[in-house]
Amino acid sequence: MNQDYIKPDNWSIIEEGFDFERAKSSESLFSIGNGAMGQRANFEENYTGPTFQGSYIAGIYYPDKTKVGWWKNGYPEYFAKVLNAPNWIGIDIEINGENLDLATCKTISNFRRELNMKEGWYHRSFEASLQNGTEISVNVRRFLSLDLDEVGMINYEIIPLNKEAKIVYKPYIDAGVTNEDANWDEKFWEPLEVKHLENEAFVTARTFKTHFKVTTFMQNTIFANDKDLNLSPEKVDASNDKVQFSYSVTAAQGEKSSIQKMGGYTVSLNHENTLSAAENAIQKGLAKGYDQLLQEQIAAWAKIWEMSDITIEGDVKAQQGIRFNIFQLNQTYLGKDSRLNIGPKGFTGEKYGGSTYWDTEAYCIPFYMATKDQQVARNLLTYRYNQLDKAIENAEKLGFTNGAALYPMVTMNGEECHNEWEITFEEIHRNGAIAFAIFNYYRFTGDYSYIPEKGLEVLIGIARFWHQRANYSTNHNQYVILGVTGPNEYENNVNNNFYTNYIAKWCIDYTYEQIQKVSLEYPSDHKRITEKVKLTHTELHSWKQVADNMYFPYSEEHKVYLQQDGFLDKDLVKVANLDKSQRPINQKWSWDRILRSPYIKQADVLQCFYFFEEHFSKDELKQNFEFYEAFTVHESSLSPCVHSIQAAVLDKMDMAYTFYLRTSRLDLDDYNKEVEEGCHITSMAGTWMSIVEGFGGMRVKNDALHFSPKIPKEWNGYSFKINFRNQILKVSISQNETKLSLEGSKTLTVFVNGKAILVEPDNLVTV
Amino acid sequence: MNQDYIKPDNWSIIEEGFDFERAKSSESLFSIGNGAMGQRANFEENYTGPTFQGSYIAGIYYPDKTKVGWWKNGYPEYFAKVLNAPNWIGIDIEINGENLDLATCKTISNFRRELNMKEGWYHRSFEASLQNGTEISVNVRRFLSLDLDEVGMINYEIIPLNKEAKIVYKPYIDAGVTNEDANWDEKFWEPLEVKHLENEAFVTARTFKTHFKVTTFMQNTIFANDKDLNLSPEKVDASNDKVQFSYSVTAAQGEKSSIQKMGGYTVSLNHENTLSAAENAIQKGLAKGYDQLLQEQIAAWAKIWEMSDITIEGDVKAQQGIRFNIFQLNQTYLGKDSRLNIGPKGFTGEKYGGSTYWDTEAYCIPFYMATKDQQVARNLLTYRYNQLDKAIENAEKLGFTNGAALYPMVTMNGEECHNEWEITFEEIHRNGAIAFAIFNYYRFTGDYSYIPEKGLEVLIGIARFWHQRANYSTNHNQYVILGVTGPNEYENNVNNNFYTNYIAKWCIDYTYEQIQKVSLEYPSDHKRITEKVKLTHTELHSWKQVADNMYFPYSEEHKVYLQQDGFLDKDLVKVANLDKSQRPINQKWSWDRILRSPYIKQADVLQCFYFFEEHFSKDELKQNFEFYEAFTVHESSLSPCVHSIQAAVLDKMDMAYTFYLRTSRLDLDDYNKEVEEGCHITSMAGTWMSIVEGFGGMRVKNDALHFSPKIPKEWNGYSFKINFRNQILKVSISQNETKLSLEGSKTLTVFVNGKAILVEPDNLVTV
Repeated sequence: MNQDYIKPDNWSIIEEGFDFERAKSSESLFSIGNGAMGQRANFEENYTGPTFQGSYIAGIYYPDKTKVGWWKNGYPEYFAKVLNAPNWIGIDIEINGENLDLATCKTISNFRRELNMKEGWYHRSFEASLQNGTEISVNVRRFLSLDLDEVGMINYEIIPLNKEAKIVYKPYIDAGVTNEDANWDEKFWEPLEVKHLENEAFVTARTFKTHFKVTTFMQNTIFANDKDLNLSPEKVDASNDKVQFSYSVTAAQGEKSSIQKMGGYTVSLNHENTLSAAENAIQKGLAKGYDQLLQEQIAAWAKIWEMSDITIEGDVKAQQGIRFNIFQLNQTYLGKDSRLNIGPKGFTGEKYGGSTYWDTEAYCIPFYMATKDQQVARNLLTYRYNQLDKAIENAEKLGFTNGAALYPMVTMNGEECHNEWEITFEEIHRNGAIAFAIFNYYRFTGDYSYIPEKGLEVLIGIARFWHQRANYSTNHNQYVILGVTGPNEYENNVNNNFYTNYIAKWCIDYTYEQIQKVSLEYPSDHKRITEKVKLTHTELHSWKQVADNMYFPYSEEHKVYLQQDGFLDKDLVKVANLDKSQRPINQKWSWDRILRSPYIKQADVLQCFYFFEEHFSKDELKQNFEFYEAFTVHESSLSPCVHSIQAAVLDKMDMAYTFYLRTSRLDLDDYNKEVEEGCHITSMAGTWMSIVEGFGGMRVKNDALHFSPKIPKEWNGYSFKINFRNQILKVSISQNETKLSLEGSKTLTVFVNGKAILVEPDNLVTV
Repeated sequence: MNQDYIKPDNWSIIEEGFDFERAKSSESLFSIGNGAMGQRANFEENYTGPTFQGSYIAGIYYPDKTKVGWWKNGYPEYFAKVLNAPNWIGIDIEINGENLDLATCKTISNFRRELNMKEGWYHRSFEASLQNGTEISVNVRRFLSLDLDEVGMINYEIIPLNKEAKIVYKPYIDAGVTNEDANWDEKFWEPLEVKHLENEAFVTARTFKTHFKVTTFMQNTIFANDKDLNLSPEKVDASNDKVQFSYSVTAAQGEKSSIQKMGGYTVSLNHENTLSAAENAIQKGLAKGYDQLLQEQIAAWAKIWEMSDITIEGDVKAQQGIRFNIFQLNQTYLGKDSRLNIGPKGFTGEKYGGSTYWDTEAYCIPFYMATKDQQVARNLLTYRYNQLDKAIENAEKLGFTNGAALYPMVTMNGEECHNEWEITFEEIHRNGAIAFAIFNYYRFTGDYSYIPEKGLEVLIGIARFWHQRANYSTNHNQYVILGVTGPNEYENNVNNNFYTNYIAKWCIDYTYEQIQKVSLEYPSDHKRITEKVKLTHTELHSWKQVADNMYFPYSEEHKVYLQQDGFLDKDLVKVANLDKSQRPINQKWSWDRILRSPYIKQADVLQCFYFFEEHFSKDELKQNFEFYEAFTVHESSLSPCVHSIQAAVLDKMDMAYTFYLRTSRLDLDDYNKEVEEGCHITSMAGTWMSIVEGFGGMRVKNDALHFSPKIPKEWNGYSFKINFRNQILKVSISQNETKLSLEGSKTLTVFVNGKAILVEPDNLVTV
């Protein structure tokens, strides 16, 4: 049974009632972020119940010393992980001498959380009866400004319900925080300097080793019935890593008292002097004030939604799911800064270290290409270009030569920071996705300039890797790739993983073609690059030998490509016949049992069909989909979206809808029983794909948009927008018809079910 | 270049000259042990140079919390490791106010170590000039009594060479020790009680968690020119885990001063009250005194050598090598106690946790069967019988049912304590060696009684495991075993490892036969066992299905069994063509590169041919040997011995001799560049096999000994003794002839090169 306490709502995530048991799940689900920073929905006031405290700053990481059993050559010494950042949200509250703590109140009623996705704020309200008999009503709103992205705002209101209350507000900032997943229980922050002046305070700390400097700041204003009391702190407690102010007020029964706390971070990634930057940030925030900042927040989110919203009519849970996914993606990454990337948990947890995985290229780029300016996707590509030297170094550590590049499996700064040999050394398919993203970017945007400027060097490094990584098998009289882990991580160290072999061949072929094209169309770039990387004709010939003679495992009996050599030796019991008590198998079975079973975490043969759909016939897709779907347990968050898309292609609409719900509500309904640790951000882009590419059937072929619209029987209609080459196309699909409308100045020819349709600006076309 | 500082000598290991760089190597090589305890050759006096301190007690272990990267289901929580035990050898020495420390002396000359293997003692002597100008000559002898195996003796003599010296002897015992390989830098010993009285002191401590109690004791006597001075300590420093005495004497120039320190351990494995046991141990030791204990030591070792010595004429290095191996095996394990087993490093280091591996059954048992009373081998078998319940639990953790047993890869107490999935969960071939040892024990000793009494239950648990572990492949129409690591650990998670499949089938077949035999010959045992384990005819039938239809990978092209599926897809470059700078590959290459290479740590197809030689023709052996030898890098200490034996069978005598030298002098010449960490004890039994089974060609067939004597051209002759069913046969082989002589009362028919020879007691036969 999955969790189901989140109230269905078109625009908000709502929880009603307080439950210790689900506090950590809610802390994940109600997380807020603004691309530059983010935090779990921890309470501002002290809370002694189970909680997972987390506040994160984009791009700030710590190279934690790795923890392994037996060391293997080539393992990285450090695992770069996102840091739990200093706390700026904390406000201890005293009511008539008693510390407010939801874990110790006599009763709590009308507890409610709302994450308003439309307007970008998080609100919490409750009534509590304290041990000392005081009853209060509390309303807290918090948001992280999209416009001033170093600034967050909290408005914390208290109304005594049954008597007068002396309220002490004790807002603080604290750099004395730790990571739950610290390998060696070390502190990651070194306090440097503490400053406070009137209602403002600053704690500057830097990370050990990486020496990122961060000033955490706060500014506080106390109100009575919304009137500024112009109070100064009556007490200041300052240590070397924490400052806490105390403000005492007395509120009559029924009278509203409140504190507005502004806080946030300024970081050395962006400022020479983080302290003066923090002082500036407070000045800018005060100049606007809480109300204006909130109005601007609503406007900024309206602008994001204007472009990226997907509407679904007649299915509130489906609507809530897709908006939650789109909202979280935008909270995590807005594409402003090519030094940043998209961590699998965004700002909602520590797991996976906040680092960059192949998820970005394989799943996230299509979403950002279609819903943002194309510069955003280009920034994501540039991130890898900037790390090419380190990818070459990484390959050298593993014995490759001649500029071969192996991008890390997990990285913060371009260096590998994962160490399980079967993943770090063997899950090399990631290199393929990075090349595919370059192809995909050009296919979608038509912006070829990236390739001669930057992409070709990346492609050459990757092609060189595959060329060296394959070896000639006299047995097959073809080239083979031995000892890999494919995207299906429930197989380790296999030979000839179909997906890996296929994308390896494709990478070489595609790079070869781009070298020809650049040589003809961008000769000076061609000269610059080939001289820099010392490319010879002999080398290119040798690449082609490998690509033209790659071995692909295939079953004549089943008429499917084989996931890897030997797959048919398994005991091929389908998932449908697997005892339910054994699932999820990753929580029930030992690793060897998973490995020798036929069960698939995410089907990588199908991932190959997804990337290279046009290389295969629909019959082939059907054959392979039906074969592998039967063995797939979808214990990867990246699995259901691809299945949903392919089920739609194959007109298996019930299945497509089931997979859609699973991907879109993976976290809200906690399918994988792990949302406490954070949300699955990167797979949320897959949810977007499952509507746009799955139901909508969007493809780009020959520089044109194609759609083959389908609609689940549960829906009345749905709509989405696509930024296609700087023109915004809105697509609305109902049970009967498809409507197309265009913003911009030019006409656009799109294809619906293969038929060319001319769409003119501001002129609705119905098909 | 291997190390070569050990002086060739027939009976001793000798080092001359002092070198910081090799101090840790020598600490390993000069280790002493008596089966119950042992220690590295650490100096008694304080030494501030590089040192690896180690003293170990058989059977005393600590379950250290495991350290892994990403946790996998089924991993054990603890890694039981041998403990660095409290120090009882320490004697700080002050000479005219200066602390004696070989790292700070002005000069050291005539430094010499000798490990006298014939007599079982370790001696160290040197002359040193101290910073204060005093010159001294030092002689230290140390031994661990074989007869009083809780007692060790040190005789530490000092002669001032250039002036009178005030000497302060400060002997101590200290439980404040740590393991170098502690995963979390924790202390493993909890001090309980300290006691001292006159010249005796006792520190009682117990291990955390396992609560083994150990009293470490010492008793000291001070001499001048060998005359007991009847001194009592003038000063006692006692803390909660250490006692140190001080004795001051003045020695004139040229006058010998000495301390005799008796010390050791009494443990709760053997005594209710370890403190009174320690007092008793001292009394027993004092009753005999140093000189008598030394004489008894020499006599005890003479008795061991009388049975287990191998002589080699005309090749001092070969002679020294084999004696070093036999000596270390006897220092490590004497077979008195079925709770004990043989750790891969014996008492010479911490690595591999002092635990039990398959090495015992695969390599050590033949040595102990042939050179000890048969009860010793039976004790080693019983060790596994006693752990059967835990092997069944271990299999259950991995999803097996119905009493299937999987013995742990690494264990102290029957529980698995290793956690690398590719080894812990997949190196399941260990189960085969445990069954093979039962077969081998009966084949050699003729003692069938072990099987109905104990062995059959073990065999049934193992057969059940293999039956469940194999699965039917519709592809092959046979049973396959997927996802294993064979004895060649340079392949992980492979399918159909030939060795594993073969021994799995053999285990089932052999168990099936023994069930029939026991049912006919020991019907009441049969009834008892089959009722206990609930064995049915249907189950037996199902076993046979698997055994009779097991798949074995084979290459028609090369006419060899394939190490595993897909082996021929590799880039088959032979070791001879591998750049020498790349070796040892386990220090030069990343793990994935090793895995996809054809290089073999130890050839497991050949291991199968070694165990089941009679199942294959000599042509098959030749074909497989030549194929696999070309890819084998012998980076396992267990590899060269099997190659030496098979090279001898195939009349490749130069190769056999080269492999013999490599196995016998692996540690003395430090082939694998790791002797600092300790010696490779278990593979030393392989060295013995390479002479007796390799050159001597000893086999047991149909209850009779067979020999096919061969001799390397470098040797004049060699001889060994075999305890065959309580008769001692001595075999002497020269370039021209083989001589056989027999102790005992009955005649014995042995076969030499297939010809039956009747040997009568005390009547030399020359062939």
